[in-house]
Amino acid sequence: MFNQQNKERNLSMVMDLYELTMSNSYFMHHNKEQKVAFDVYYRRNPDNGGFAVFAGLEQIIDYINNLHFSLDDIAYLRSLNLFNEEFLTFLQNFKFTGDIYSFKEGTIMYPNTPIITVVAPLIDAQLIETAILLHINHQSLIATKARRICHVANGRGVSDFGARRAHNVDAAVYGARAAYIGGVNSTATVLAGQMFDIPVSGTMAHSYVMYHKDEFTAFKNYALTYPDSTVLLVDTYNVLKSGIPNAIRVAKEVLAPMNKRLKGVRLDSGDLAYLSKKARKMLDDAGLNDCMIIASNSLDEDTIASLITQDAKIDSFGVGERLITSKSEPVFGAVYKMVAVLEDGKFDPRIKLSENIEKVTNPGLKNVYRVFDETNHAIADLLTMFDEEVDLSKPYEYVDPQKPWKKREFVNCHAVKLQVPIFLNGKQVYQTPSIHEIRNYVFKQLQNEIWEEEQRLQFPHIHYLDMSKKLYDVKMSILEKVKENDN
Amino acid sequence: MFNQQNKERNLSMVMDLYELTMSNSYFMHHNKEQKVAFDVYYRRNPDNGGFAVFAGLEQIIDYINNLHFSLDDIAYLRSLNLFNEEFLTFLQNFKFTGDIYSFKEGTIMYPNTPIITVVAPLIDAQLIETAILLHINHQSLIATKARRICHVANGRGVSDFGARRAHNVDAAVYGARAAYIGGVNSTATVLAGQMFDIPVSGTMAHSYVMYHKDEFTAFKNYALTYPDSTVLLVDTYNVLKSGIPNAIRVAKEVLAPMNKRLKGVRLDSGDLAYLSKKARKMLDDAGLNDCMIIASNSLDEDTIASLITQDAKIDSFGVGERLITSKSEPVFGAVYKMVAVLEDGKFDPRIKLSENIEKVTNPGLKNVYRVFDETNHAIADLLTMFDEEVDLSKPYEYVDPQKPWKKREFVNCHAVKLQVPIFLNGKQVYQTPSIHEIRNYVFKQLQNEIWEEEQRLQFPHIHYLDMSKKLYDVKMSILEKVKENDN
Repeated sequence: MFNQQNKERNLSMVMDLYELTMSNSYFMHHNKEQKVAFDVYYRRNPDNGGFAVFAGLEQIIDYINNLHFSLDDIAYLRSLNLFNEEFLTFLQNFKFTGDIYSFKEGTIMYPNTPIITVVAPLIDAQLIETAILLHINHQSLIATKARRICHVANGRGVSDFGARRAHNVDAAVYGARAAYIGGVNSTATVLAGQMFDIPVSGTMAHSYVMYHKDEFTAFKNYALTYPDSTVLLVDTYNVLKSGIPNAIRVAKEVLAPMNKRLKGVRLDSGDLAYLSKKARKMLDDAGLNDCMIIASNSLDEDTIASLITQDAKIDSFGVGERLITSKSEPVFGAVYKMVAVLEDGKFDPRIKLSENIEKVTNPGLKNVYRVFDETNHAIADLLTMFDEEVDLSKPYEYVDPQKPWKKREFVNCHAVKLQVPIFLNGKQVYQTPSIHEIRNYVFKQLQNEIWEEEQRLQFPHIHYLDMSKKLYDVKMSILEKVKENDN
Repeated sequence: MFNQQNKERNLSMVMDLYELTMSNSYFMHHNKEQKVAFDVYYRRNPDNGGFAVFAGLEQIIDYINNLHFSLDDIAYLRSLNLFNEEFLTFLQNFKFTGDIYSFKEGTIMYPNTPIITVVAPLIDAQLIETAILLHINHQSLIATKARRICHVANGRGVSDFGARRAHNVDAAVYGARAAYIGGVNSTATVLAGQMFDIPVSGTMAHSYVMYHKDEFTAFKNYALTYPDSTVLLVDTYNVLKSGIPNAIRVAKEVLAPMNKRLKGVRLDSGDLAYLSKKARKMLDDAGLNDCMIIASNSLDEDTIASLITQDAKIDSFGVGERLITSKSEPVFGAVYKMVAVLEDGKFDPRIKLSENIEKVTNPGLKNVYRVFDETNHAIADLLTMFDEEVDLSKPYEYVDPQKPWKKREFVNCHAVKLQVPIFLNGKQVYQTPSIHEIRNYVFKQLQNEIWEEEQRLQFPHIHYLDMSKKLYDVKMSILEKVKENDN
């Protein structure tokens, strides 16, 4: 279903114009065959968190596989009067022919570590920049936000209610996908359920209650339609004076005679801590101890944490706008930087300078390792040159780039290469896992591998990003060379 | 192109599950034919502005025209084990059959005024809720943000660079559409240019400079490819020591011999105020007074205002993440509220209560007027019951709901009905204007009709929303009745 939807849309033209103007210029100057390498990485965790959740890879794969320019596309580009006719002919026959290496979707990731590396002919590598960034930036943003919310909810249910406040249709459906990967239990967005096999949930709006002549009739009709899953929205008029009493009455007069139980009530306004406690007491007193209380209304990790601290009696949370837009921080800043150019059979490292040292890129084609200690906890990520062998069977000396003067060693550790080949010579060589496998992979890492200290929301431990001595020396020597030229 | 893209995607299932569970219940209880009315409105202007720009109507129209459930959709819904088989058969043949009245796209709008009113059979009205809100909330958010940015840029160029940070593909392309409606001059997103006939712009990334052995060669190659539109990115290494001198050298050594002028340079990092002044001086001293300086890097209305206050020498702004996500306020909160139910041939008004008076809905089927004074400035919006005639040829007494005890009159005013019929009995009766007409409509209103005091960004004048005496009395009498029932 999902693939069908995407094949029907030609998304190849989702790119910044400069990808095409640069490519045209490369083409004109006969540079198009030269192989280059780009790294994708981000600089800062959203909401000052300790990590982010990598999501969006499946959509990138679909984009690459589908990348082509239709005759309509070529005609449009021709109309811009920017492009050489031979270049347009080249585009008309264009297929991506390069290599792409990537973290597996769902990998816990940290700033400045290459998530994806593209090694491809210049034009191939340039044309895919915008789409790669767009998919990573959107889905990683929402998956990370969802993880924060689920972390705080601490086992209570969390459902995505965000479609109406999402930044258009894709944001609703791919946002629901990312939220599910990040840990949310279900979505209200039907198309997302259909496309991605995510559980869907939903009950009634205020309009259902307002339509009926009175609240009890509304509740009764709903219970008769869904006796096995009756969840009643109790705040249309007055939660404690009307909504809960009518819900209890329906449980007794409508559901009990059918041998059914009231599944839940939903609070969508007012003081959720106060109302949930009062409602819990009223429901319990009526013998409805198994009736869930679901809460919604501009919730996020902060409001949920506050509700839990107040001992609110809430079993499940519906989260909408603050999840689907990642309201507190709606931008995920992954970037796509050239790190090497193949010259005379050798990858010549390239660097982007900046006034601040953190923004200076890590040059060269590299390997990314995650280093685990004896308890199988991830203690650092390690960057090396791509042709280095890392042997952790004996003590391994590395450089902490924050404190390069200190002697550092990994002892009794093992390492796993984080990037796997996704495309080789333009051909997909990676089988995408199911969304449920991706979600379980996130859980498993958080449960077994990632320090709790990195998972807390306030002042988390900062994951180390170390370098091999060789890579560090390469970076420093390039910086030296640049310094000379700068004077 | 646009319509073709949308026809290929079946977006009918972009809805919250509860639209379907409620509809199924209505169907089961034989309520589906009953006509109801819903109002769409929002409660607060983003960023504490004085107004918002209504956008997204064209996509709503496409959604309604295309709304249908395929056999795949029905099969998926059946698999949820929630729906009656007769209801699924009903859905399979479903077409929207109701009436929709709406502001014209591009209308300047204010909180609590019904932008759209849907009068339709119960299920028809319910099923379209999510999509209507999603399109309005996304595009009005971005159009309003774009307007704020363009207001501050005050005639300087503004271009959308946001695709890579957008919340997925639709957010990039419909965001570009909305930004153009709000006043942006062009977009870098090729697909948006192609779909909506928006001017596209774009030059080079840092990778173009890094790929070449040195900056001068990069600039030279670019100038040779685009001698008529050479814009050079000058901050890859060092703006003042390298970027600008190399740009000047290209202007003299490459472009001048071809009788071409350097069109512009782009600054993408560092202190844009300082660098732009220094760069301007260097360019002017080299006789390149007509060379534009374009700036980008996390710009929005606040940073642009600050740059202008500092007398930065910037001719044009590229705005990315902060526009395309409306970063400072990424949620537009339009809601969809039932206001009346047709009973015995008469629309019975319905109200949604709340603890705070602002959240109490305005009941009943209504007309929305914009009232203009003799200078043709919009002095208030006016709500009346739908069957009221408003005659402003003589003094007209109305109620200011904030101060209902005061006697208020419109004198020497005229009024325009803001909602026009879009669908009648399910048939589209409205011809959508071109995006350029919509954009001009925004400009024209701001230039001629909307007080400057509402357009300033700090503490703008709050537009009045008044009521006819009849509507006010209806609302109060319903509130009285509810009060009695609440005791």
